[in-house]
Amino acid sequence: MTVIGAGTIGLSWITLFLAHGRRVRVNSRRPDAEEVVARGVELFAPTLPHGGADPLELMELLEFEPDVERAVRDAAVVVENAPEDLALKQELFARIGAAAPGDALFLSSSSTLLADEMSALMPDRSRLVVGHPLNPPHLVPLVEIVGGEATAPEAVAGAVAFFRSVGKTPVVLRKPITRFVANRLQSALLQESVHLVREGVVTVSELDEIVTQSVGLRWSVIGPFQAFHLGGGEGGLRQWLTRRGGGLEQSWRELGRPRMDDATIDALSSAAEEDFGDRSYAELAADRDARQNAVLDALARFPH
Amino acid sequence: MTVIGAGTIGLSWITLFLAHGRRVRVNSRRPDAEEVVARGVELFAPTLPHGGADPLELMELLEFEPDVERAVRDAAVVVENAPEDLALKQELFARIGAAAPGDALFLSSSSTLLADEMSALMPDRSRLVVGHPLNPPHLVPLVEIVGGEATAPEAVAGAVAFFRSVGKTPVVLRKPITRFVANRLQSALLQESVHLVREGVVTVSELDEIVTQSVGLRWSVIGPFQAFHLGGGEGGLRQWLTRRGGGLEQSWRELGRPRMDDATIDALSSAAEEDFGDRSYAELAADRDARQNAVLDALARFPH
Repeated sequence: MTVIGAGTIGLSWITLFLAHGRRVRVNSRRPDAEEVVARGVELFAPTLPHGGADPLELMELLEFEPDVERAVRDAAVVVENAPEDLALKQELFARIGAAAPGDALFLSSSSTLLADEMSALMPDRSRLVVGHPLNPPHLVPLVEIVGGEATAPEAVAGAVAFFRSVGKTPVVLRKPITRFVANRLQSALLQESVHLVREGVVTVSELDEIVTQSVGLRWSVIGPFQAFHLGGGEGGLRQWLTRRGGGLEQSWRELGRPRMDDATIDALSSAAEEDFGDRSYAELAADRDARQNAVLDALARFPH
Repeated sequence: MTVIGAGTIGLSWITLFLAHGRRVRVNSRRPDAEEVVARGVELFAPTLPHGGADPLELMELLEFEPDVERAVRDAAVVVENAPEDLALKQELFARIGAAAPGDALFLSSSSTLLADEMSALMPDRSRLVVGHPLNPPHLVPLVEIVGGEATAPEAVAGAVAFFRSVGKTPVVLRKPITRFVANRLQSALLQESVHLVREGVVTVSELDEIVTQSVGLRWSVIGPFQAFHLGGGEGGLRQWLTRRGGGLEQSWRELGRPRMDDATIDALSSAAEEDFGDRSYAELAADRDARQNAVLDALARFPH
């Protein structure tokens, strides 16, 4: 298989695919690609779920090919992680599509572009599917699978099978929507979080603590609908919604509509620097990943 | 200490307080209060965090007093869990305030009413504080502490100390706001979840799976601000917000505004019954609690 792009997302994917025994050919425009990938694999391999992996062993399965056409010539699967630039991706996929085998599967990690947009210049548009991960892809289980009008059902099925084979949890969206599902949910929660901080109800770190100590814990084990289904007792979601019907709409109307102006950006950023700035990016990320893996390990004992 | 009310929240609180060695006097209007509380403690004790407890041992610390005035006469702390009815709570707190010792602390589990409203008829309004838990209180760490204009700072500090002493994570809101923080965040996420299901992008159980496999896992270990602070790399939240500034406002404008009408209630409820209906309430709740405890145990190894 071939991975295009060795940015943050690409490096995390590369590490995961290697850990699942895949021989990975990397195509990157960086002149120092080999060094960048080696550093990325060294950084991410120890934090792979369920115990980590030895980076040196993983790197034995790596190849590099700076020419795009040669990189995809015999690839069964191509995972693209180029910058979020539509024209760039259109041209890239046109070249990939022309050079790759006739049955290759093309997976884009894009978080904002749709398959039909990116495939516009391809000779065969049916094999491009979005496989949108959350950062970092080697740790967060979800991959949102989003085809377009031009995508063949077999390509969607192939994307699901591929991501399952590397331990991910693919969920197929039934229709394309801007920014897909997980980021829209993040956006909704962030909007109210910004509102509450700007209103002076809580600080940045207090808001975070409220989330991790309540809804975050809850949503790590059950989603919002099942949570409210249980909130309705024996009567389930029907009882919960029926009792709250009008009150829910009222609660939605009362949600904040903050501006993301310079003053807001500065206030939130200064608060984050104050609250989190005593630890470096590397320390915070390592702590996040260690905790995330502990949660993943704890939940791995339960049936999916 | 005295617990008023033996509904779902009251029973969960009673079990937790007993497990922390508190002698609990229960005041309930139910004629079968002793039986109801015994069943509640039996149900909840095994699911207490970090290994559960023996219900029979816990029940040795229980007392019952059906008369409100007598129930609070020598109480240092009173935790109120009456129905969400302002007139009822006002009258109840007036009676409690008149009968309890002059330095007693009054904690209300209300999720919708404010301290200043509930204390309106009390002789001394300074000792009433909202301590809002998420369901079930014996499992979810967060308690939102919300005082009012009339509340003394000492009462807020007392509420924090009390909830810490029974293993909870209290967070003090800096000003009162309708429905407090955690439920507002839940409401924001639910609104977009309902929108995405009604638009046909995902089903109820697919939406839930997306949450548990991505943002829920993430938010169980770090809150949204720290997550985006790390998303900005070395540049932190400032870099993340600066790059996305206008795009964030745009993404908020694109969030859905669903109606909670009869058709929506029926569609969501039918889907929940279809997706979750193969398991009983008791089975689903037991599975939720087992998973939640596994996550809490996994995270207990890390510094808070």
